[in-house]
Amino acid sequence: MQEQARRAARAVDGAGQWDRLARLGAIGAIPGGGVCRLALTAEDMAARRLMLEWAAELDLEPATDAFGNLFLRLPGTRPEAPPVVSGSHLDTQPHGGRFDGAYGVVAALEAVRAMRKAGLTPRRPVDVVAWTNEEGSRFPPGTMGSMVFTGLTDLAHAAAIVDRDGVALGDALPAFLAATPDLPLRPFGTPMAAYVEAHIEQGPVLEAADEQVGVVTGIQGSRWFQVSVRGEDAHAGTTPPALRRDALRQACSMVDALHQVFDNGDDRVRFTVGRFDVDPGSPNTIAGGVDFTIDFRHPESAVIHALSVRVAPTCQGHAGPCGVSVRELRDVPPVSFDLDVIRLIDDMAAGLGYRYRRMNSGAGHDAEHLAHVCPTGMVFVPCRGGRSHTVTEDARPEDLAAGTAVLAASLTALSEAS
Amino acid sequence: MQEQARRAARAVDGAGQWDRLARLGAIGAIPGGGVCRLALTAEDMAARRLMLEWAAELDLEPATDAFGNLFLRLPGTRPEAPPVVSGSHLDTQPHGGRFDGAYGVVAALEAVRAMRKAGLTPRRPVDVVAWTNEEGSRFPPGTMGSMVFTGLTDLAHAAAIVDRDGVALGDALPAFLAATPDLPLRPFGTPMAAYVEAHIEQGPVLEAADEQVGVVTGIQGSRWFQVSVRGEDAHAGTTPPALRRDALRQACSMVDALHQVFDNGDDRVRFTVGRFDVDPGSPNTIAGGVDFTIDFRHPESAVIHALSVRVAPTCQGHAGPCGVSVRELRDVPPVSFDLDVIRLIDDMAAGLGYRYRRMNSGAGHDAEHLAHVCPTGMVFVPCRGGRSHTVTEDARPEDLAAGTAVLAASLTALSEAS
Repeated sequence: MQEQARRAARAVDGAGQWDRLARLGAIGAIPGGGVCRLALTAEDMAARRLMLEWAAELDLEPATDAFGNLFLRLPGTRPEAPPVVSGSHLDTQPHGGRFDGAYGVVAALEAVRAMRKAGLTPRRPVDVVAWTNEEGSRFPPGTMGSMVFTGLTDLAHAAAIVDRDGVALGDALPAFLAATPDLPLRPFGTPMAAYVEAHIEQGPVLEAADEQVGVVTGIQGSRWFQVSVRGEDAHAGTTPPALRRDALRQACSMVDALHQVFDNGDDRVRFTVGRFDVDPGSPNTIAGGVDFTIDFRHPESAVIHALSVRVAPTCQGHAGPCGVSVRELRDVPPVSFDLDVIRLIDDMAAGLGYRYRRMNSGAGHDAEHLAHVCPTGMVFVPCRGGRSHTVTEDARPEDLAAGTAVLAASLTALSEAS
Repeated sequence: MQEQARRAARAVDGAGQWDRLARLGAIGAIPGGGVCRLALTAEDMAARRLMLEWAAELDLEPATDAFGNLFLRLPGTRPEAPPVVSGSHLDTQPHGGRFDGAYGVVAALEAVRAMRKAGLTPRRPVDVVAWTNEEGSRFPPGTMGSMVFTGLTDLAHAAAIVDRDGVALGDALPAFLAATPDLPLRPFGTPMAAYVEAHIEQGPVLEAADEQVGVVTGIQGSRWFQVSVRGEDAHAGTTPPALRRDALRQACSMVDALHQVFDNGDDRVRFTVGRFDVDPGSPNTIAGGVDFTIDFRHPESAVIHALSVRVAPTCQGHAGPCGVSVRELRDVPPVSFDLDVIRLIDDMAAGLGYRYRRMNSGAGHDAEHLAHVCPTGMVFVPCRGGRSHTVTEDARPEDLAAGTAVLAASLTALSEAS
C-alpha cells in the first residue's frame, strides 16, 4: 500500500472520533442509550449544526443541495476534479442507536482530519457527506437524499410525502435548510469520482467471526409496499358479525398469510411488516381502515420477483368484505459494488493488518444509489450482537477506529488516483 | 296515562331539539357530517359551555361533580327529594356522529323545557345530566363518568389513565372543570329516584320494523381486555428469520386466532379488536411491541364467561418467541332494567300512540351503571341503517321528537311519583 495511505490511517484518532459520536448521540437521546432523531426535525437540525461547527474547526468547506444533503470539503490540489466522497446519514430510527449513520459521517470527518493531520493534500477534493432522510421512518421510503441527488427520484415527488401528523416533507424542508443559512448550493447530480461509506454491520457476522472490518461487495435488493385495507367504521356493540367490514381483522389475516408465504425456509428472506396504522383506532369501533407497510429484501433478484408477485394476491385473498390496494413504495434491485474499489479496500485492510472479510450487506444504504453514478464501496465494522434499529445498538471504539483507518487509507488512495 | 304526562309530551318541540343537535354537532365537526369531540378536549369543553348557555336560558340550576359530570336541574316542589335524572354524554368517537350521546342530553333538556312550557312543576327535581367520558376513545374504558359517580371505580384510578400522547386523565381534568367555573359541586353517589336515558338505537332493529320507539329492557354484558405483546426491536434488513422476536407478526397471529375462536356461529357475539398500537411503527424496524384492545359483548353471562376464558390461552398459544400479557380493562355483566320503569315507558309509548317494541341494547350506556343505584330504563329511537360510531350516523327529526315525547311523559310521571 502507498505510504501516504498508511500515514493517513495512522493519524486516525479513535478517541476523538468516539467523543464526536457521544456528542452526536446526545442530540435526541432517549432512555436505554438510544437516539430518536427523525429526519427534518429539530434534533436533525441540531446534528447538522454540530457538523458545521466541526467543519469550521477543521477548516472544511461546507455546501448543501436543495434536499439538505450536507457536504464538507477537504480541498484538493485539483479543485476542478470531481471529489472522492464519504459519509452516511444523521437521522435515526424512532428507537435508534448512536452508530447507525452517525458512525459513517463521523468516520469520514475523522478520515479527512487524519489526512490533514498527516500533512497530506489530496489531488482530488475529499467530501464528507450527510445524506438527508436515510431512515425514512418519518417520511418513507428511506435513502431519499441519495435518491434525489442521483436522480432516482425527483424533489417534487419527495416533497409530496406526508408524515403521520399530516406534515408534507416539502413543508418541513425549508426550515431544515434555513437552520444552516449561507451555504453554497450544489446542483443535484454533481459528478463524483468515487464514494465509500463506512457503517456498522447491523448484523452478527463480523462479531461472530471476531473480525474487525467487512469489505462490502454489494447490497441485497429491497422492495417496499404499502397495503391499504378499507372497510367501514361501525359500532362494536351493535353490529352483527355478518354486517361487519372490519379492516383490522382482515389486515391481521393478510399479515398472517403473508408471513406464511414468505416464511419459506430460505433464511436469507427478510420480510417485515413494521408499520400498521389503524383508523380510527378506538376500542369500541370496528376499524374502517388499516394501512400497513411491507419491507422485503433478498440478495437474489429472481427470489425478490417470485415472492413479490404474491403480495397483492395474498392480500386480496384475505380481504373478506373489505377492499384492499397494494402500492409499491420502493424497488431497489440487488447492487454489486465496483470491483476496483472492493479490491482497494481489501488491500488497505490487509496492509494495515486487520482481520477482515468480504461480505454482502443486509441493510440498505445510500451507497446503493451512488453505485449507479460512480465507483462505490463500503467498509463495515462489527456491532454488538448484530443489533441495530434499537436503543441497545452498540459498538467498540477500537473497531470503529479500525474501520476509520481503512476508510482514511482508501480515501487517500482514491483521491490520489487520476 | 296521566294528563300531566300527556301535556309534557305534547309540548315537546321537535324543531327546537333538532336545532340544538345541529349546534352541538358543529362543535368538533369533521368531514362527512360527523363529529370528533373526544373527552376532556377543547371541543368537549365547548359543548359543555353550550349546555350551560341553554341551562341559563331555561333557568335550570347547574351543578357538577369532581369528575366533570354536569347536572342541570329543573327544581321540584320537594327540593330535598332525590331527583329523577335523564341524560347521556357529549363526548364522541374519533369518527363519531351527531346523535350518539348528544341526542340523550338534548332530549332530556327538551323534556324539561316541555314540562315547564306545559306549566308543570314536578314534585321531585328533574336533572339533565351529561356524563363525562362515556366513549372511552381517548381514555379507555368508556362509561367512566357514571362508573365514578356510582362508585364502581374511584377517581384516583380513573385519573391515572393515560391517553396516547401521554396525558393523564387527572392532568386533563382540572382544565375541563375550570372551563365552567363557579358550579356547585355535587358529591359522588348523591341519591337519585330514577334514571331514564334516551339514545339512538345504534342497531338496525327499529328501522327495519318501521317502529318509532324502543323500550329497552337491559344491556348486554361486555368485557374489555388489553393485550400487550413484547418482542425486540431489530433491523428489518439484517435480522434473520430465526432471530426475530416480531411483536407485530405475533399480534396479527393472535388477532386472527381470536377471531376464529369468537366466530363460532352465534350471531349475538360482538368481538372487536379496534385499537392496535405498534411500537416503534417504522417500516424498516421489526416491531418490539404491540398493544391491542378486545371489546367483547354478549347478552348471556355464561357465553361471556365461556369465551372470555379463551382470550389469554389463545394469545399465549400464538406468542411465538414474544412475551404476552392480558389485562382486563372492564367487566360489566348483562344488566336488566327496572320492570316498573320498563312498564311505565311502555305505557307512555302506547298512550301517545307510537309504534314501539321492547328490546335489549347491544351498545353499552351509562344507564348500565345507574341501574345498580336506582330504578333505571332507556328509550331508543331508530337511526339510519343502524349505523353508529361513524360519520354517516343519521336519524330523522320526527323519530327523535317521538323519543323525546315518550321521555318527557316518563320523566313527568316519575317526578310525580312518591
